[in-house]
Amino acid sequence: MASVWIIGVGMTKFGKHPERPVEDLGTEAVLEAIRDAGIDPRRIEAAYCGHVFQGMVAGQRVLAQTGLAGIPLTNVEDACSSGAVAVREAALAVRAGEHDVVLALGMEHLTGRFRGALTPAEDDVETAVGMTMPAVYAMRARRHMEEFGTTRRQLALVSVKNKRNASLNPCAQFQATVSVEEVLNSRPIADPLRLYDCSPVSDGAAAAILCSDAVVRALGARKPVRLAAAALRTGEVEIGLSSMAIEPITQRTAAAAYQQAGIGPDDVDLAEVHDCFSIAEVLRVEGLGLFPVGEYPVRLERGEADIGGRLPVNPSGGLLGKGHPLGATGVAQVVELVRQLRGDAGPRQVEAAKVGLAHCRGGKAAGIEGAACTVNILVA
Amino acid sequence: MASVWIIGVGMTKFGKHPERPVEDLGTEAVLEAIRDAGIDPRRIEAAYCGHVFQGMVAGQRVLAQTGLAGIPLTNVEDACSSGAVAVREAALAVRAGEHDVVLALGMEHLTGRFRGALTPAEDDVETAVGMTMPAVYAMRARRHMEEFGTTRRQLALVSVKNKRNASLNPCAQFQATVSVEEVLNSRPIADPLRLYDCSPVSDGAAAAILCSDAVVRALGARKPVRLAAAALRTGEVEIGLSSMAIEPITQRTAAAAYQQAGIGPDDVDLAEVHDCFSIAEVLRVEGLGLFPVGEYPVRLERGEADIGGRLPVNPSGGLLGKGHPLGATGVAQVVELVRQLRGDAGPRQVEAAKVGLAHCRGGKAAGIEGAACTVNILVA
Repeated sequence: MASVWIIGVGMTKFGKHPERPVEDLGTEAVLEAIRDAGIDPRRIEAAYCGHVFQGMVAGQRVLAQTGLAGIPLTNVEDACSSGAVAVREAALAVRAGEHDVVLALGMEHLTGRFRGALTPAEDDVETAVGMTMPAVYAMRARRHMEEFGTTRRQLALVSVKNKRNASLNPCAQFQATVSVEEVLNSRPIADPLRLYDCSPVSDGAAAAILCSDAVVRALGARKPVRLAAAALRTGEVEIGLSSMAIEPITQRTAAAAYQQAGIGPDDVDLAEVHDCFSIAEVLRVEGLGLFPVGEYPVRLERGEADIGGRLPVNPSGGLLGKGHPLGATGVAQVVELVRQLRGDAGPRQVEAAKVGLAHCRGGKAAGIEGAACTVNILVA
Repeated sequence: MASVWIIGVGMTKFGKHPERPVEDLGTEAVLEAIRDAGIDPRRIEAAYCGHVFQGMVAGQRVLAQTGLAGIPLTNVEDACSSGAVAVREAALAVRAGEHDVVLALGMEHLTGRFRGALTPAEDDVETAVGMTMPAVYAMRARRHMEEFGTTRRQLALVSVKNKRNASLNPCAQFQATVSVEEVLNSRPIADPLRLYDCSPVSDGAAAAILCSDAVVRALGARKPVRLAAAALRTGEVEIGLSSMAIEPITQRTAAAAYQQAGIGPDDVDLAEVHDCFSIAEVLRVEGLGLFPVGEYPVRLERGEADIGGRLPVNPSGGLLGKGHPLGATGVAQVVELVRQLRGDAGPRQVEAAKVGLAHCRGGKAAGIEGAACTVNILVA
């Protein structure tokens, strides 16, 4: 299989940007990625834009602002995995030999579309009657507690770790650390989850420039990072509670990614995973095989997932600390991994990181256990 | 370049289907394509779904109904080119060697989202103050009349031809022919365009199954059709009226497609083009180089674009006759071309058709001359 390389990354600060249109955020991320790659922007042959709520031809509006108008651009949407899918489709275009240099952009302006939390679509009856995302993850937390003895305090440690990591990341929405007590005393959202167990409403954009073997050699790119796998799966038919405390969709997507990369979970040095809620990080890292099923909460207590621990999880701050502008998230994970694998992550640098894994999961569709899951694996 | 083949197609009747959810329409098209290909559905390894207004993870909702849940699916959006882009991305996944059999689905349920004509997005100021699509194409019609002497009666001939072709297509929204007088006397929409110059609001879905060389050989597929080119371009920066009576975005996209297919416009035997308005067909076929710039209206009068003419245009009925459920349109064009190239088009069969071209164009973004244009070329 032909290799695909990432030669430039950029992202905006995540947070509330009510005064900035989404095109502005997208443009900032794209221009930073171009500068980072050190290439002539005219070398970019095609683009993919991942977003959920930004309306028709949102990616083209960014191209029009950046001087890149004219090239092929495909907008992609797979709920919270949209940005990760933009990276995957960009890689497929390179591997197909269709394009040598391709831009993957992810962006979202949620404060411009929603007042407060995201509201369900009019025809989404299940959510309208109460099966909101916080409610679903609250049930999953209860189930994990029931099956594995996970404690409320252990869940809080996910938020404590990720907000601490975010405080070391200038692009993160939250810059302040929180204590276990602050998590436990924050406003109730869906029992047992509290406000600080939930990822925030965010605006932001992130971009990565992918290229072929031939281009990476010709450019003599500075510390290129190899995209060793880009796996995507839709959920399978769900029966009863089979996917509450474990996550089959993540297990299957990870298996596909490990096979494509020719590595196993033991080879992973750091991971950015989809911690939309504190319990979600637990389900993700256990589903990915990075920690034994049911044991992550205890391992977390021992510091194994800290920067400096056995396997740092969400050194960027994750969704809980860095923020979660839906379409931007999957690309921002790749931005963080590239910075870590280059050794450019500053105070949150993971030592000797060679293999990084990014995981997203999102969306729902009646009868299946999740709409889309992605695992991207990067190798220094 | 590895070849990509189309081995199965299916589509619903286009029209008003207020009682049927979009997932239902999508499922019908997918199941017909599977039956047409004669393959075990478990051979489908991945899917792309083109739509504009069907909400988050719409494609996954169809997978959940068809028994295909679990495979990778990417929703794609490029306005009216969304379905054509689904075909292109499916082809890239095959060419990359990632998947051997890939489903391209396009679908849209417009009557479920809009009462009457499509309404602009809240932040689309240009459209809100009057630059609606009918108004834009009315100006383009006036400009073509001014520059090339095109007459109002000649424009009506586009609608007359396409509704006549639609009357031969059981999948078409309109089954009745119209006369020139009926077009000219229909309700005014945006002068000089009348109701019968405009494509309707439609619901529908279309699907195609693409595969690699290896699979087409192993299956011994019945009359496979080769996808010889799948080109996509975004509009370039627009200056003044430079793209009113001519269509540079179509010219550039066509040039890329002809180069990829290794053919020229003289090799094309039939074309399905994006006739969202009568004038649009004129601009498309001239931009594609299928007829000399400024001459199509006269050639149309001579019957050159009729079924049985030198180069039949929109034998399916086109958007004006078959209907225009946005995301479905680009895939439905491919469905028609496959049926024509196989010799399966019944009373609207184009004789000895070997090379078919499909063109879509859609969307707008401030400062550029159109958001997305696609040209797919199929060879028997």
